[in-house]
Amino acid sequence: MADIDLDLDSATAWLAPDELRSARERLPILYVDVVPVRADERGQIESVGILLRATTDGQITRELVSGRVLYHERIRDALMRNLEKDLGALALPEIPPSPVPFTVAEYFPTPGVTPFHDPRQHAVSLAFIVPVRGECEPQQDTLDLTWLTPEDALADGVLADMDRGHGVLLRQALSHLGYAL
Amino acid sequence: MADIDLDLDSATAWLAPDELRSARERLPILYVDVVPVRADERGQIESVGILLRATTDGQITRELVSGRVLYHERIRDALMRNLEKDLGALALPEIPPSPVPFTVAEYFPTPGVTPFHDPRQHAVSLAFIVPVRGECEPQQDTLDLTWLTPEDALADGVLADMDRGHGVLLRQALSHLGYAL
Amino acid sequence: MADIDLDLDSATAWLAPDELRSARERLPILYVDVVPVRADERGQIESVGILLRATTDGQITRELVSGRVLYHERIRDALMRNLEKDLGALALPEIPPSPVPFTVAEYFPTPGVTPFHDPRQHAVSLAFIVPVRGECEPQQDTLDLTWLTPEDALADGVLADMDRGHGVLLRQALSHLGYAL
Amino acid sequence: MADIDLDLDSATAWLAPDELRSARERLPILYVDVVPVRADERGQIESVGILLRATTDGQITRELVSGRVLYHERIRDALMRNLEKDLGALALPEIPPSPVPFTVAEYFPTPGVTPFHDPRQHAVSLAFIVPVRGECEPQQDTLDLTWLTPEDALADGVLADMDRGHGVLLRQALSHLGYAL
Repeated sequence: MADIDLDLDSATAWLAPDELRSARERLPILYVDVVPVRADERGQIESVGILLRATTDGQITRELVSGRVLYHERIRDALMRNLEKDLGALALPEIPPSPVPFTVAEYFPTPGVTPFHDPRQHAVSLAFIVPVRGECEPQQDTLDLTWLTPEDALADGVLADMDRGHGVLLRQALSHLGYAL
Repeated sequence: MADIDLDLDSATAWLAPDELRSARERLPILYVDVVPVRADERGQIESVGILLRATTDGQITRELVSGRVLYHERIRDALMRNLEKDLGALALPEIPPSPVPFTVAEYFPTPGVTPFHDPRQHAVSLAFIVPVRGECEPQQDTLDLTWLTPEDALADGVLADMDRGHGVLLRQALSHLGYAL
Repeated sequence: MADIDLDLDSATAWLAPDELRSARERLPILYVDVVPVRADERGQIESVGILLRATTDGQITRELVSGRVLYHERIRDALMRNLEKDLGALALPEIPPSPVPFTVAEYFPTPGVTPFHDPRQHAVSLAFIVPVRGECEPQQDTLDLTWLTPEDALADGVLADMDRGHGVLLRQALSHLGYAL
Repeated sequence: MADIDLDLDSATAWLAPDELRSARERLPILYVDVVPVRADERGQIESVGILLRATTDGQITRELVSGRVLYHERIRDALMRNLEKDLGALALPEIPPSPVPFTVAEYFPTPGVTPFHDPRQHAVSLAFIVPVRGECEPQQDTLDLTWLTPEDALADGVLADMDRGHGVLLRQALSHLGYAL
């Protein structure tokens, strides 16, 4: 599995805004979602990272790290790129060696088909839990990054206002890690 | 998770040939791959199903059940639809209740990036092992369906001529099921 | 992987009560836990099965299908035997072809180490979700078998009185299946 | 999930040799197997670690990291302890946060039941892939530790002489990671 040098800025990798809009009305769009975690040396979770983000219409929402997989991009490169985009270049994520996600989240433009909803598109997201060891710095349009203990994250109300069903996804991640929900 | 009645033949679900061609040059396309298996009552595999298919240029290839996920289609509905397309309406597949695939296969248009290759597109496929209990009848452009014991399937040469790396995927499935490769 | 005919009633397969008691004070004991489910033809869960059982001290508890793995017994045979013990011989379970559990539950004799607790022993349980297609008849000391929709099962209080943390395990199973907890 | 301070050297944690021998004739014994890997910053495997060990009868065998789970020991603590026992205290393993193994290996005292064989006992092993970041020093009865690229590890003959079916387990691990076998 040799590495091919990819120029992701090439014409075929990026869609013009109207082309992306058109594709979003016709095809499921592939995403990765990431639950960033801090773990101790035994792999026990100490905290989970949640982004505080300003939406285009001025609201503040809590979100997980999330983003599209680009044309000719490996899943693991998409994980790396989206983590770097949201947590900065010094986060030192431990990308899992296995390609198998802990769950697959299906975001429908129609609410209620699944617990996940994205008004822009039908997105199918491979969701991974990724330990990070370095320093995290909110990037770009991210206002802040909060680390919560699993117990605090599961407390009533904290996850209720997360966008697109990300609160559900975070609870599924903690359940997968063995926590009692 | 209520069911929404979907008209998959509607304008937004299907792409015109040139639109699909354009999307394939710009976006990873979401697929499902299926390894159909016959299992005994203890879940032990008795045989795996392989399709014999005529390609558009007249060659005969061996393939797994495989197909696109359509716009606004659930993964489990894509599994059902593609199984029915290739094995007929009486195959009685046992679609797994969990959305987690046994592996994720990344097909690149450039050979050698991964063991999977699709000259038409960058496809990302969620791969599932699906027991079938009913009668299987090859459909449409499928010439035949062969059932092989795991031992025969793993014999040298049988899987070598499978298309797009499907031989690798079948071996990964058997490895996941506990077989010695 | 040929089948070896196993006489599980032989002297080495079963422990005398005092030997089992001694082993339970010295070794983790291997279990399987099963969440029986009814699924539609697309693999979507319709209901989950919960046992109503009378404990030795006369209490009524709700439980999942659960039992020890015996000496020289395959995991899949332990699943089959314990399902038959609790649901009867006509339940027609679809034992998963893969040996990978959806989670591993660690039951400690000391409460609070994990969400799972068993005062008798340290048990490590491989937990599986198993669709059943046939008729289920409560067996032996099982008083009744209830089928609940996922929504009803997740309603407050229903799972709270399940023994040994089985309510947690059932919620983890539903989370693994994509439900919002 | 609070940590309980465990004295693993206490009387109940360790079995006297004759007690362990007796238990091994009556009960499946719980193990963990570990495939240690070196990964790059994208989680791509660079090499896998194989132990060269002298057996009690003077033979040299290749093995994976492997060991029993003790009474009242968490799976993650058993992983940590067995990695430290074989690779030393400075290996800096990244224990996976999830309790789900990539496979479950069933070792039978009777050869041929599964690809795994242990003449001493019926052992059931939870198998994990664990990236290590630090310095590895063979410990105790381990003569040496070899790091092989996935390609070299999969070359004919390298894994054939691994003990107890560990060569099969290593190939299953590489298959799970997406490699072509």
